[in-house]
Amino acid sequence: MLIVADENIPLLDAFFAGFGEIRRYPGRAIDAACVKDADVLLVRSVTRVDRQLLEGSRVRFVGTCTIGTDHLDLEHFAQAGIQWSSAPGCNARGVVDYVLGSLLTLAELDGVALGERVYGVVGAGEVGGRLVRVLRGLGWQVLVCDPLRAACEEGEFVSLETVLERCDAISLHTPLQRDGEHPTWHLLDASALARLRPGAWLINASRGPVVDNAALRALLLERDDVHAVLDVWEGEPQVDLALADLCTLATPHIAGYSLDGKQRGTAQVYQAFCRAQGLPETVRLGDLLPPQPLASVELDASADPTWALATLCRAVYDPRRDDADLRRSLGDDAEAQRAAFDLLRKHYPARREIEGLRVRVPEGAPRLAQLVNALGAALV
Amino acid sequence: MLIVADENIPLLDAFFAGFGEIRRYPGRAIDAACVKDADVLLVRSVTRVDRQLLEGSRVRFVGTCTIGTDHLDLEHFAQAGIQWSSAPGCNARGVVDYVLGSLLTLAELDGVALGERVYGVVGAGEVGGRLVRVLRGLGWQVLVCDPLRAACEEGEFVSLETVLERCDAISLHTPLQRDGEHPTWHLLDASALARLRPGAWLINASRGPVVDNAALRALLLERDDVHAVLDVWEGEPQVDLALADLCTLATPHIAGYSLDGKQRGTAQVYQAFCRAQGLPETVRLGDLLPPQPLASVELDASADPTWALATLCRAVYDPRRDDADLRRSLGDDAEAQRAAFDLLRKHYPARREIEGLRVRVPEGAPRLAQLVNALGAALV
Ligand SMILES: NC(=O)c1ccc[n+]([C@@H]2O[C@H](COP(=O)([O-])OP(=O)(O)OC[C@H]3O[C@@H](n4cnc5c(N)ncnc54)[C@H](O)[C@@H]3O)[C@@H](O)[C@H]2O)c1
Ligand SMILES: NC(=O)c1ccc[n+]([C@@H]2O[C@H](COP(=O)([O-])OP(=O)(O)OC[C@H]3O[C@@H](n4cnc5c(N)ncnc54)[C@H](O)[C@@H]3O)[C@@H](O)[C@H]2O)c1
Repeated sequence: MLIVADENIPLLDAFFAGFGEIRRYPGRAIDAACVKDADVLLVRSVTRVDRQLLEGSRVRFVGTCTIGTDHLDLEHFAQAGIQWSSAPGCNARGVVDYVLGSLLTLAELDGVALGERVYGVVGAGEVGGRLVRVLRGLGWQVLVCDPLRAACEEGEFVSLETVLERCDAISLHTPLQRDGEHPTWHLLDASALARLRPGAWLINASRGPVVDNAALRALLLERDDVHAVLDVWEGEPQVDLALADLCTLATPHIAGYSLDGKQRGTAQVYQAFCRAQGLPETVRLGDLLPPQPLASVELDASADPTWALATLCRAVYDPRRDDADLRRSLGDDAEAQRAAFDLLRKHYPARREIEGLRVRVPEGAPRLAQLVNALGAALV
Repeated sequence: MLIVADENIPLLDAFFAGFGEIRRYPGRAIDAACVKDADVLLVRSVTRVDRQLLEGSRVRFVGTCTIGTDHLDLEHFAQAGIQWSSAPGCNARGVVDYVLGSLLTLAELDGVALGERVYGVVGAGEVGGRLVRVLRGLGWQVLVCDPLRAACEEGEFVSLETVLERCDAISLHTPLQRDGEHPTWHLLDASALARLRPGAWLINASRGPVVDNAALRALLLERDDVHAVLDVWEGEPQVDLALADLCTLATPHIAGYSLDGKQRGTAQVYQAFCRAQGLPETVRLGDLLPPQPLASVELDASADPTWALATLCRAVYDPRRDDADLRRSLGDDAEAQRAAFDLLRKHYPARREIEGLRVRVPEGAPRLAQLVNALGAALV
C-alpha cells in the first residue's frame, strides 16, 4: 500500500508505517503526479483535495488530520466511492484549557469569584460541548446557545439575546457561517455588543469574524468595565493593533494548539482508516505521547478549591505567555506583523492538556476530587 | 511568669503558653500599666518600647517578632540589663520568592532567557544575601553591591556604578538610611536611573525612598524599554498613581508577607528567649506550620529546566495576583486609596514559601535536582 502524506503530519510513521510505504511532501506541493500511485492520501488543511487532484489515481482513502473539511471535495469523494475522515474535535480540549486560563486571568484582574458568575457558551459542538461539561462539572451556572442543536435535541438551550442579557462571561464556539438560517458572521455586532452586561467578559476563540472587530474596538474604547479575550481576528494574520491594545488577552490563533491535540488529529484519522479497512487498531496515542513535564501533583486535604483550580490549570497552561509573545510582535510594519503571527503559530512551544495531568488527592477531600474530575484530569 | 503580648502575634500560645500566663493587648494599647507586672514583653513594630514604658516594671526580656528594631530603645535595655531579641531575616525568604516571581513575569513579557541576564543585588544582608545564593545556585551571573560588607569581608563586591553599568536586572535590598557614610535615601536618584542599561529591570522591595519615585516616574515616561517593579513606595500607604501605572508590577509592601515568615518571627523570638533563659527549645516551627496546599510536585525527567523553574515558583507564589489587587484599589480618592493599601496588607491571603515545597525528581535528572536545590525547595 502506498501512502502519500503531508510531511508536517505528526506521528505519521508510528501510526501508518505498518500499512505500507509512506511518501512525504510539503502540503502545498502535493499534486496529481505525487498522488497518482497512492492508495491513501493524508493531508492537512493546506492541501485542496478534489477531482482534479484525485482523478486517475488509485486513492481510496483520504484523511485530513485537522478539524476542518473546507479543503475536501466531499461530493467528489461520494461519487468516486472514496472513503474519508477528518479529525473532529481533536484540538477541542486545548481550547477548553485556553478558556479556563483566560477566565482565571480575568477573575484575578477583576477580583471576582468564578463560581459566582453566569457563563454563556455560544455554539456547543466539539469545543463548546466540552467546555459546558467542564464548567458545569465545576458547579458553575452555564447557559447554552446553539439553535442548530436546539432544533433537533432535548435539553435546555437559550437564545443569544438571553445570553447577552444574563451572562457575565460569554465564550464563542460557533463555526464561521456567512449565510444559511443561522449565520455567525458578525454574530456579535455593534448592537449585540452594546447589550453586554456591566463587567462582562467576552472570549472569542472560534473564528475572527464571528465578532465585528471594529464594533468591539469601539465598545472597549468606551467601556472600561468590559474585558475581551481574542484568539482569532478579523483579517488575521493581520491584527488590528488598537483592538489588541484594548483586549485583556490577545493571542495568535493558538487556543487549540496543544501537542496532544496535534497528535490526536493523526490518531483519529488512523482510527477511521482502521475502521474503513476492517483492521484492528494496534497503535494507541496514549503510548506515543511524550510524558507530561509535570509528572504529577499532590494536593493537601486542606487546599482551597479556588486556589487548586487556578494552580492546576496554570501549571499546565497559562495564556498570558502567548499574550506576551503576540504583543511583542505587534508593530506598525503590517507585513512584519503578519509574518510574526504566522511564525508564532509555526514555532509554538509544546503545550500539554489538563486532561493529561495526574493529580493525587487524599481520602476525605471530596470537593478536591470533584474539582479534579470536573477538569478532566486524572485522579491517581 | 507573666507574659504581656501584642494580640496580633501568631502562634503565641504554641510557643509561649508553657512559660506562664499570657495577657494580650492591641499593640498600640500596651502602656506602662499593662506592662507593670510582666516578666516578658512581646511586641510587633507598632509598640514603642522605651524607658517610659518599662521603668518600674519587672520586664527582663523584650521580644519583637519583626525584623526592625527602630521601635526599641536598645540603649535603655543595655543600661537596665534587659535582654531582648528581634527576628532578623524572618521574612527574607518571602522577598526572595517575590523577586523570583517578578523576574519570571518580566522574562515572559520581554521574551528573554533569565539565564542570560546579569543580576545586580544592592544590599546583601538577610534578604539580599539569600537572593544572591538562590540566583547563583541557578547558575546565573550576579554582581553584589554592599559597601558595608565590602569594608569588612573578603569576597567580590562591586560599586553601585558597576551595577548600573553592567546589570540587566537590579534588585534593591538595603535599609533606609538618610545619613551616615552610606546613605540609601534616593540611592537611585535621577542620575543613577539615567544610567540604567537598555531593557533594564529595576525591582524595589526594600524601602520606598531608596528610589527617587518622581525621578523614576519621569524615566519610565521616557523609556519604554525599562521595567520597574515596586513593592514599596515613597510616602506609602499613599501611592503615586501615575508611577504605579507605569510600573510593570505594583504591590502594597507585601513582598515578605508569607505565612511562614510571620510565624517564623515568633519562632525566632522564642528561640532567643530560650537561649536567654538557658531553657531547652521544645517547640518547633516545622511542627506548627500548616501543610502547604500543594503537598508535592513530581517532575518528569524530560522537563525543561526553564519551564520547571517558572512552574515551581508560580505554583507557590505569583506576584501578579497582588499587582491586580493593588491596581483595583488605586483611585483618585487619596484617603480611600491609603486605607485600601493598609487593608490589602492586613487581610493578606495566606502565602507559602518555595522553601516549603516538596519536589520529586527522578534519578538521572541532575539539572532538575540542581534547580530544586537552588530554589531551596525540598527534594523528596
Ligand atoms: N482557536 C482555535 O485554535 C480553534 C481550535 C478549534 C476550533 N476552533 C474553532 O472553534 C469553532 C468551534 O469548533 P468545533 O470543533 O467545536 O465545531 P463544531 O462544528 O463541532 O461545533 C460548532 C457548534 O456551533 C453551533 N452553531 C452553529 N451556528 C450557530 C449559531 N448561529 N449560534 C450558536 N451556535 C451555532 C453548531 O450547531 C455546533 O454545535 C469553529 O469555528 C472552529 O474553527 C478554533
Ligand atoms: N517589602 C517587604 O515586604 C520587606 C520584607 C523584608 C525586608 N524588607 C526591607 O528590605 C531591606 C533589607 O532587609 P534585610 O532584612 O535584608 O536587612 P539587613 O539589614 O539584613 O541587610 C541590609 C544590607 O544592606 C547593606 N547596605 C546598607 N547600606 C547600603 C548601601 N548604601 N548600599 C548597598 N548596601 C547597603 C547592609 O550592609 C546590609 O548587608 C530593608 O529595607 C527591609 O526593611 C522589606
